[in-house]
Amino acid sequence: MKKLKDLNYGFIGLGLMGGSLAKAVREKILNVPNANGKIFAADINSGSLNLAVQDKIIDKGYDISAADTMLESCDLVYICLYPHATLDFLKTHKNDFKPGTVITDISGVKSFILENKADFVRSDTDFIPGHPMAGGEKEGFSNSSGAFFQNRNYILMPQKENRSENLELIRKLIRAMGFKHIIETDHIIHDHKIAFTSQLCHIIASSLVDSAEDDKITAFGGGSYEDLTRIAMINAPLWTELFLSNKRELLNHITAFEKSLSNLKDAIEKGDGNKIENILSRVRSKRLAMSCIDSTV
Amino acid sequence: MKKLKDLNYGFIGLGLMGGSLAKAVREKILNVPNANGKIFAADINSGSLNLAVQDKIIDKGYDISAADTMLESCDLVYICLYPHATLDFLKTHKNDFKPGTVITDISGVKSFILENKADFVRSDTDFIPGHPMAGGEKEGFSNSSGAFFQNRNYILMPQKENRSENLELIRKLIRAMGFKHIIETDHIIHDHKIAFTSQLCHIIASSLVDSAEDDKITAFGGGSYEDLTRIAMINAPLWTELFLSNKRELLNHITAFEKSLSNLKDAIEKGDGNKIENILSRVRSKRLAMSCIDSTV
Repeated sequence: MKKLKDLNYGFIGLGLMGGSLAKAVREKILNVPNANGKIFAADINSGSLNLAVQDKIIDKGYDISAADTMLESCDLVYICLYPHATLDFLKTHKNDFKPGTVITDISGVKSFILENKADFVRSDTDFIPGHPMAGGEKEGFSNSSGAFFQNRNYILMPQKENRSENLELIRKLIRAMGFKHIIETDHIIHDHKIAFTSQLCHIIASSLVDSAEDDKITAFGGGSYEDLTRIAMINAPLWTELFLSNKRELLNHITAFEKSLSNLKDAIEKGDGNKIENILSRVRSKRLAMSCIDSTV
Repeated sequence: MKKLKDLNYGFIGLGLMGGSLAKAVREKILNVPNANGKIFAADINSGSLNLAVQDKIIDKGYDISAADTMLESCDLVYICLYPHATLDFLKTHKNDFKPGTVITDISGVKSFILENKADFVRSDTDFIPGHPMAGGEKEGFSNSSGAFFQNRNYILMPQKENRSENLELIRKLIRAMGFKHIIETDHIIHDHKIAFTSQLCHIIASSLVDSAEDDKITAFGGGSYEDLTRIAMINAPLWTELFLSNKRELLNHITAFEKSLSNLKDAIEKGDGNKIENILSRVRSKRLAMSCIDSTV
């Protein structure tokens, strides 16, 4: 059985997420006296790579164009790119992974990647799709943190061809990095649920900022508006891609939300206090029954 | 000039808000060796009153039916009731306030109270409407806290007949309790702004919980859904009253929000990546320009 502390890790993309994952591996897995593992990273941003080397997070950085050279030395590869770039990387570098490599990713939409599995899967490597449920409005390696994933959820989508020892290795890695819950499901359910808990929320927060009369409105705020719109400080290109890659699921959830909103609006319009109170009481019970993590990071 | 430490305070309603205000007065104003002021409170809940006496927050509790007796001893009266009960109290007890009393309230909707000012205003007392911008999903005196208002906003609506020394007294009181910003405006602007920053947010959070498939959805959460729906753990009767008392303003804001949402939905439906990215970029800049308080309490 492979040991986490002796693996060579390769990060493709060293932004907020890749950087935070690399720091978690460095601080929580390789920071023991007898660890033999190394961390490599490939990115287009040489400044991030230099900073990561200087901070002793990674052992060596590679320009993304030299990723093939880096892959020759990696036992576990973490692809931390935007969704379409993830699929492109898997296809382009299909033959560059060394035999036995465990490959995982962080793409927030999975169906379009797995529907193209035939284009990148090899019988002698193992691709285990995953989605660490964390994010932040401040981007880039300079904002990354090894404590970023403490008590967070991680969604893992094991494939029927995955080797059980590799799945177990990935689960150990996730727990070691600080995540609290691992949810194992398939990509169809993942994309359906994520369209609700993540994408719809970003759509709502953005619409709520869009509909504000001006940016002085928070002088009248008591915390609610601030909490509901924090995630509107959005990475526009990334979220545009996420929304469009999961369009059908997201549109269904927006429509369901619009229906709930319209139902409440209708009761207010009619002055139907009983109906409003019934809806609010039911909603309160339902929200109280939800088991929630503490806050965004 | 009256001194805050020597006033007798009367709280009408000793729930989460009244209790927290009373505790703030006790801890931050009367907790000095030479303070002569006292705190009285009237409530329907004798358990809360007893607990408040036992905890040395109030000096004496009165059943709400004996509020007239209590008012004889009060220099500053804080009405901490639901909106309609606030107006009812002001009307019913119009002649029970002792001459010179400064009266304030916390009602989250103001127009319908001030439109009825002729029914309760006296020339020898001073009613200064206010709205402390804080709230919480846990109700009642037992959940109240004197630190509840730290760094919060307070909206004050001075009336043309208010005496300047009484206005200055209320401002000093608000600052002493820990509030950071006092916004002074009129009740029309208050109700318009609050319908957006507070009421619309509660409508959206409730609709977002209402539209969830089930209460297990948070297993797939990364913090966004949790943050957007925390305020859906709502006090149903209070919020029903707030929504209906500010119906016209709230409906206008819901309609504006629906339009922003529909605009984004339409761009997703058409796969118009440029339009989505433009909206998201504009929203990000607008939200970054907003000056926000840290979080809900």
